[in-house]
Amino acid sequence: MNVLFLGTGAGIPAKSRNVTSIALQLLEERNAVWLFDCGEATQHQILYTNIKPRKIEKIFISHLHGDHIYGLPGLISSRSFQGGESLLTIYGPKGIKEFVRTSLSVSHTYLSYPISFVEVEEGLIFEDQQFQVFTSKLDHGIDSYGYRIVEKDLPGTLLVHKVKELGVAPGPIFQKLKKGETVSLDDGRILNGTDFIGPPQKGRIITILGDTRYSKRAIELAEHADMLIHEATFSAKDDRLAYDYFHSTSTQAASIATEAKVKKLILTHISSRYQSKEEILLLCNEAKGIFLDTMVAEDFLQVEVPKNKKE
Amino acid sequence: MNVLFLGTGAGIPAKSRNVTSIALQLLEERNAVWLFDCGEATQHQILYTNIKPRKIEKIFISHLHGDHIYGLPGLISSRSFQGGESLLTIYGPKGIKEFVRTSLSVSHTYLSYPISFVEVEEGLIFEDQQFQVFTSKLDHGIDSYGYRIVEKDLPGTLLVHKVKELGVAPGPIFQKLKKGETVSLDDGRILNGTDFIGPPQKGRIITILGDTRYSKRAIELAEHADMLIHEATFSAKDDRLAYDYFHSTSTQAASIATEAKVKKLILTHISSRYQSKEEILLLCNEAKGIFLDTMVAEDFLQVEVPKNKKE
Repeated sequence: MNVLFLGTGAGIPAKSRNVTSIALQLLEERNAVWLFDCGEATQHQILYTNIKPRKIEKIFISHLHGDHIYGLPGLISSRSFQGGESLLTIYGPKGIKEFVRTSLSVSHTYLSYPISFVEVEEGLIFEDQQFQVFTSKLDHGIDSYGYRIVEKDLPGTLLVHKVKELGVAPGPIFQKLKKGETVSLDDGRILNGTDFIGPPQKGRIITILGDTRYSKRAIELAEHADMLIHEATFSAKDDRLAYDYFHSTSTQAASIATEAKVKKLILTHISSRYQSKEEILLLCNEAKGIFLDTMVAEDFLQVEVPKNKKE
Repeated sequence: MNVLFLGTGAGIPAKSRNVTSIALQLLEERNAVWLFDCGEATQHQILYTNIKPRKIEKIFISHLHGDHIYGLPGLISSRSFQGGESLLTIYGPKGIKEFVRTSLSVSHTYLSYPISFVEVEEGLIFEDQQFQVFTSKLDHGIDSYGYRIVEKDLPGTLLVHKVKELGVAPGPIFQKLKKGETVSLDDGRILNGTDFIGPPQKGRIITILGDTRYSKRAIELAEHADMLIHEATFSAKDDRLAYDYFHSTSTQAASIATEAKVKKLILTHISSRYQSKEEILLLCNEAKGIFLDTMVAEDFLQVEVPKNKKE
């Protein structure tokens, strides 16, 4: 599981940063990629990565501003052109379906795969045996959602050496113990499966937020997350601009990270007014003054979300 | 007047060629740029040129396939963000207005300038004191238009030396002669203005076509053009593919150039199946075998359309 930043700029594309898109790569977990937002030329950025468009299983849209959605029609079309056949599910605020459907129908685009739209409301919006995804509305003038992706705990594995120590040979008994069942051996001994299962591995939590002012809802979404991706359109010194334009500063993002007790904070959606390395370093250090494990994303930054230790 | 190719690929973007857009730069003529088609990431390509989005006065869309229109919402938004205030007129097939309007409204985009839409039909679609633009439908499965841009002839200038030879001093008489009026001098001589006006300068003709199979309509649109920009999605050896997908080969484009007696042919909209320099050279040479003054466009190629000699 890793996060690959495809676009880390705000508002309009610049040479140094494209508009927003973030890929959550779940290749080991489910041989799939989940995309969060899809600004114009996201498919162009993908050309410079190992991402295969047909492996994009879900796209989560935080809000409908153009710099977060104008890349959707092209990416969707190219996914078809490149042989995509599996269902694509698009989650986003009401309106996303109209935008995509109109774009595809006006351009006479016929896809080789089905699309399912989920126009989200707050709460649990997806769950299967591996993951849950929750959303909550942030504070951005128009509806802007944050996404909390919760990996379910992995059950412990059979402690093979412990079973072998009792003189049991691999076979059907192993399978039963693995399921936690109770087994009677031929010699009369009774083994309780739960005694031979190792500790579970706690699932990871990744929180990826849309554009927002400082918001208490962000704290809830990010609680104890392994990784929080928060916008920092502005430096702390430009807090008035941040407020006026419904955005956050670096230090506001860091406060959220502290209050939510996350493990790692990555800042993105950086205004093009901060161009130099020094300005970006300053923005990062402002946040680090509040929350130490902070970094500022740049296009094509890839960050692993490490597995938790077994408990 | 020059033509700047912003995207010269077909269908989907590649590292080497973006999807279609062509800028006709009329800076000397009217301090404006006219865009022909606007595939995704056209605004990104513009970042690497001297084009100012606010100077884009008109956008002509050949047809509604995604690789020719998906860059419109982003470019339109950025033109506003970057201070554009003047009217933007968008010409294209029926449907273009719905696509742009839906994209802007869903994304809550409010522009700092007005847009006018002209959903084109065949014939004269624009005329002012400098230019005429004609369209005609080509052969591409869906409505695909070619555009013929005709610069009006520039009237001849006053032959100052010839007037001075007659002993006339610069002043009001010069002005009258310049307008072609007849003037009576104090000494009784009568001068006819038309005798003192140099030859007119013939306007230029540029023909920019949308995707098409070989089409007789293309010959009409390109007749005696100074420059013909014609798609050549396929090499001559792949003529079956060209036919099946409603596209042209290099040699078909060259035949159009020959029959229309144009001065110069530029091939664009090249399939990504032709990647190597050798393949592109072959494609070019196929055309040159039929029409010598041919070149194959690449992204950021800029070609001057030279002024005609005075007659």
